[in-house]
Amino acid sequence: MKIAGQRTRSVWKSEAGHIQVFDQRKLPFAVEIFTLSSCADAEFAISEMVVRGAPLIGITAAFGLALQAQEDPSWEALQAAAIRLKQTRPTAVNLAWAVDMMCAHLSKCSIGSRAVIAFDMAWKLLDDDVGVNERIGQHGLEIIRSIAARKGRCHILTHCNAGWLATGDWGTALAPIYMAHDEGLPLHVYADETRPRSQGSLLTAFELREHGVPVEIIVDNAGGHLMQKNLVDLVIVGTDRVAANGDVANKIGTYLKALAAFDNGIPFYVACPMSTVDYQIQDGCSDIPIEDRGPFEVLNTPVAGPEGTNWMPSAPPGVGACNPGFDVTPARLVTGIITEHGIVSASEAGLAPFNQQS
Amino acid sequence: MKIAGQRTRSVWKSEAGHIQVFDQRKLPFAVEIFTLSSCADAEFAISEMVVRGAPLIGITAAFGLALQAQEDPSWEALQAAAIRLKQTRPTAVNLAWAVDMMCAHLSKCSIGSRAVIAFDMAWKLLDDDVGVNERIGQHGLEIIRSIAARKGRCHILTHCNAGWLATGDWGTALAPIYMAHDEGLPLHVYADETRPRSQGSLLTAFELREHGVPVEIIVDNAGGHLMQKNLVDLVIVGTDRVAANGDVANKIGTYLKALAAFDNGIPFYVACPMSTVDYQIQDGCSDIPIEDRGPFEVLNTPVAGPEGTNWMPSAPPGVGACNPGFDVTPARLVTGIITEHGIVSASEAGLAPFNQQS
Repeated sequence: MKIAGQRTRSVWKSEAGHIQVFDQRKLPFAVEIFTLSSCADAEFAISEMVVRGAPLIGITAAFGLALQAQEDPSWEALQAAAIRLKQTRPTAVNLAWAVDMMCAHLSKCSIGSRAVIAFDMAWKLLDDDVGVNERIGQHGLEIIRSIAARKGRCHILTHCNAGWLATGDWGTALAPIYMAHDEGLPLHVYADETRPRSQGSLLTAFELREHGVPVEIIVDNAGGHLMQKNLVDLVIVGTDRVAANGDVANKIGTYLKALAAFDNGIPFYVACPMSTVDYQIQDGCSDIPIEDRGPFEVLNTPVAGPEGTNWMPSAPPGVGACNPGFDVTPARLVTGIITEHGIVSASEAGLAPFNQQS
Repeated sequence: MKIAGQRTRSVWKSEAGHIQVFDQRKLPFAVEIFTLSSCADAEFAISEMVVRGAPLIGITAAFGLALQAQEDPSWEALQAAAIRLKQTRPTAVNLAWAVDMMCAHLSKCSIGSRAVIAFDMAWKLLDDDVGVNERIGQHGLEIIRSIAARKGRCHILTHCNAGWLATGDWGTALAPIYMAHDEGLPLHVYADETRPRSQGSLLTAFELREHGVPVEIIVDNAGGHLMQKNLVDLVIVGTDRVAANGDVANKIGTYLKALAAFDNGIPFYVACPMSTVDYQIQDGCSDIPIEDRGPFEVLNTPVAGPEGTNWMPSAPPGVGACNPGFDVTPARLVTGIITEHGIVSASEAGLAPFNQQS
């Protein structure tokens, strides 16, 4: 999508031939470019959250492996790099999948061809992600079109950041929004701030503003009231993992918005590639593990600093904090899941037909 | 309650005879005392939120009127002061009530006696508030005792600040918690951060820490997940206004926690003096007016600064925000209302017997 009026993706090759990404730690207060010159740079970018969002982490890891193949394409070096990359953010499913898929292929290639093939695979991974998101966007667009036709408006609430900055381009939850906006539909977005890391304020609002989509930030507390007052027509969020029964893990606080949407009869959609469904997990609410991210992010808040985003204390010293990173929204609260194959019901019946492992 | 090991109330007379309060704008990063030397000081304290919380605003206004009577007890001066005081925060019901009550009484007193009588009335207002809160605390204590006896623990979630800093002493929602802690019951509090003004982090966590009550801060997004995981036994919140039908207006975000408590079968109580019930409002959800507080608080965040709490930008420039200050929790989600007269049901039947206007 656009940034400062320029069309861009989340990963690109500079004129000098370098692989580059935006340094998302500094957004939106500074727009800085981070160059991936080695596999170590890719490991750093993932572990330090220069890049975040499951799809973009997977793509970045793929470029890390390609950079490793350029430096030393021996099987020992690639295997060591794969282990290091997979340890950067162990819970991201896409990361391990991308690394394992590339290693399996590269193991069959001659040493001399590995670098070229690895880069080709990384670029293809990026292109495939963009294509999947574009199809998600087209299916979601139908929902927005239908609401806009009926109501003459579409006020959309979203949580966290499931935008192009989390993927190769388009995003998942934001893909239909970008398409609807580009089509001229009368839409407006409420972006939940999304404490503790404030991805809604820092990334979603920034993304939408840069592309020209009307957006207002709200605190995470406000969505329920806006729904009661008939000011929200649609909720769309992303997800980190969908269970076989349709339960949806997403950024902490998603469940609260789903409850409010249900209580007020507002459609609540989840947008994701079908690869996000984990058919190994039968019951999401009881079986999806939830990361405890430690107290720092709760006791501090990201604010504008002299060199980009800066974390400052926002709670009294000597007080503890509890910081679950995700929650699970029960399938009964989910209107539908917007995938690259269309909109499916959040249920075993809706998801089972797409299980390629079965 | 205690602060730095010392027993204190929210308003006191210094050894030099000055009326003093804590400057809540700077808490918890600086503990500074603010002296009310004139009615103008009281007006400033209320409008600039040196003091906040409906009961404490009413008490501070009463002292403002007393200080006015000390300076110039003429009826013209008192009437002008009353108008100025009532304009400081026009939505606070206790403020207008305290000022009107005092004016009605002072109008019947000789000019020479007005200052002494006004100070007596202000101190009595403070004492009465403390007494009411103490009775609220005792009734709420029974709920905590019963949960602790059954479960061997009581994990309590609260939202915003309905503690002693919002009242003369004890607080409303926190009064039962202080009593249960002083009694040695095994309790632990989750304090919602409560964006945008972060009263949970800045005031509730500070209050509880100073008194020695175990407390952890959570972001406003986290409570639903903790309830799903059986980590919350009880929710207690305060309220700004209760409608005749039992609907409850409180700080934005309360409704979301009430939905989650209901969805998980967790008791959700509201603590308030019976004077908080507005019998003129039949249907809280449709008729309680909700203040829009403007974008600043959403686009900025209170963090630690060199001289106490300091607001810093936490969103990209050029983005708007929507900032409703309160929401209304429907009576159907409220387990009961803890008042000085006992625990009553959040319904017309529960509240009507206490209507002194009928």
